[in-house]
Amino acid sequence: MNRIPFEEVQSTLAGVLRRLGFSRDRAETCARLFAETTCDGVYTHGVNRFPRFVATIRNGCVDPAVEPDVTARFGALERWDGRKGPGNLNALAAMERAIALGREHGVGCVAMGNTNHWMRGGTYGWQAAEAGFIGICWTNTMPNLPPWGGIEPVIGNNPLVIAVPRAGGPVVLDMAMSQFSYGALESCRKRGEMLPVDGGFDADGKPTRDPGAIEQSRRLLPVGYWKGSGLAVVLDMIAAMMTLGRATHEIVPDPLLETGVSQMFLAINPGAFGPAPRAAQIADEIVASLHNSQAAAHGGKVRYPGEQTLATRKENMRLGLPVEAAVWAEILAM
Amino acid sequence: MNRIPFEEVQSTLAGVLRRLGFSRDRAETCARLFAETTCDGVYTHGVNRFPRFVATIRNGCVDPAVEPDVTARFGALERWDGRKGPGNLNALAAMERAIALGREHGVGCVAMGNTNHWMRGGTYGWQAAEAGFIGICWTNTMPNLPPWGGIEPVIGNNPLVIAVPRAGGPVVLDMAMSQFSYGALESCRKRGEMLPVDGGFDADGKPTRDPGAIEQSRRLLPVGYWKGSGLAVVLDMIAAMMTLGRATHEIVPDPLLETGVSQMFLAINPGAFGPAPRAAQIADEIVASLHNSQAAAHGGKVRYPGEQTLATRKENMRLGLPVEAAVWAEILAM
Repeated sequence: MNRIPFEEVQSTLAGVLRRLGFSRDRAETCARLFAETTCDGVYTHGVNRFPRFVATIRNGCVDPAVEPDVTARFGALERWDGRKGPGNLNALAAMERAIALGREHGVGCVAMGNTNHWMRGGTYGWQAAEAGFIGICWTNTMPNLPPWGGIEPVIGNNPLVIAVPRAGGPVVLDMAMSQFSYGALESCRKRGEMLPVDGGFDADGKPTRDPGAIEQSRRLLPVGYWKGSGLAVVLDMIAAMMTLGRATHEIVPDPLLETGVSQMFLAINPGAFGPAPRAAQIADEIVASLHNSQAAAHGGKVRYPGEQTLATRKENMRLGLPVEAAVWAEILAM
Repeated sequence: MNRIPFEEVQSTLAGVLRRLGFSRDRAETCARLFAETTCDGVYTHGVNRFPRFVATIRNGCVDPAVEPDVTARFGALERWDGRKGPGNLNALAAMERAIALGREHGVGCVAMGNTNHWMRGGTYGWQAAEAGFIGICWTNTMPNLPPWGGIEPVIGNNPLVIAVPRAGGPVVLDMAMSQFSYGALESCRKRGEMLPVDGGFDADGKPTRDPGAIEQSRRLLPVGYWKGSGLAVVLDMIAAMMTLGRATHEIVPDPLLETGVSQMFLAINPGAFGPAPRAAQIADEIVASLHNSQAAAHGGKVRYPGEQTLATRKENMRLGLPVEAAVWAEILAM
């Protein structure tokens, strides 16, 4: 594991992106999003994922040069065409537009179709919350999860992000609809560990905590069984209907060929009715009620969603971003 | 178990409500919502719950005579004061207003505080979808669920409803953030059965499928462990911040005294950009992809959220609404 300073990571990735056809500004921003994701501790979707992102540019799934376009407007609601541009830049633009609509109308909504994997969904939640907005966004994905009652992976794990602004730092929930991601299964298996709870079914259809057995059966468990399965379905329906874009069942089930996904971005303005000093306290009080409640483990603490992020960010800014050595070598050779 | 015709249920309940101070129209509507909930098969929140609803009128938590008031407006966003009126009538009015805002602005949002238990959340999802809108709504509740990592019930099970209009009948997800409700635990225990999956912890802190053990420990499991716990927290934060109303930790933890809850209602208009025949097909195609996928059990079928509702409704309209005999006797004596 290498530790590389944030600026060096960003400038190195930006250099690669420039050579792949990104404009200077877009290369800098795209590289920053990858570096920030690693900095915040979401290692599966940050720099370690960059080589796969580059592969999707090289194979034509991601067009580095295009910008998203608005195709329909009605008041606080807009439909955008992502034009198969870079998923993280597209999503950043979509949430920025949702925030602008929310500033104008109290609530804003952007439906963006024909876009690409947004990498870390939490990025757009942080973006909204740091602008003082409640952000709600989700994406559909390629089919990668069996619905409850089924054995074929025909639904997506469709990450849902909900972010709330707060004086003490945003509260950001970023949850996929599978209990574990394939990335989490892989790293658990490599550590030789079992999952903390059942994560899927083995080849015999029995619930299991063995990550390798689930990777083989490809029968991951949805969050909360029938509940997360249903949530994945309705999120997919809304994203596809509002964008007139692809639903999960229409997306190629291959991480390197997954493209044309559909996403929703909502921004709600807690300050729409004027300054509300009370609103700013409310999330803090909820956090306090969690922190003051009794933990299950002696010496433990009940945490709010995203609570670890700021501490991780600070540590990684101080020590450098942790990047797998092989990945860093691969990036340097690009 | 009695089977009572829908109209007889509705008129009987309406008569009770009239005597409790409801106007004629409001008594009819409130009674209809209870009857429809039972008719749709949500027996825990329909007629069987009516005596508890009446108790909260008699003890002053619910004021039958008041109507909700708008207290702040900004474009597509409004804040309403539920004034401690009947929760189901208030929620119906809030979603109706969100739909009107959505018709005007593409997306509409109503935050309603100071209201009461909305009974079946799915009601307001059906309401939106039947009007041709995507409906998203949630409520906070009294503290009734331990957060992940904690043992005290300091978060709410905060039901989330997401509804999608569809030619073949709405798709309505109605999920609380606990894997099972106390009502589900009780009826499972009375049947002498174990839960199909772990539903909480026993007195020793071990995960268990024994409903009685969980009722005693009061340590229900959140949906998806840490994920549903986090989702409950952010839903509570948004509802309390946008209404400036109560957060879960401020609500009295007693089903008979639970009042002053905070709710969010969002309506998105899939027809905002003009007629979209394609949009109407999209949800149908997703349903077809589920139905065509391989089921886990031989002869089984993968279902979409709410799929059973229309069949149950039809059967109950034909045979009469199933109501517990003791409950019906109690209502007739009111």
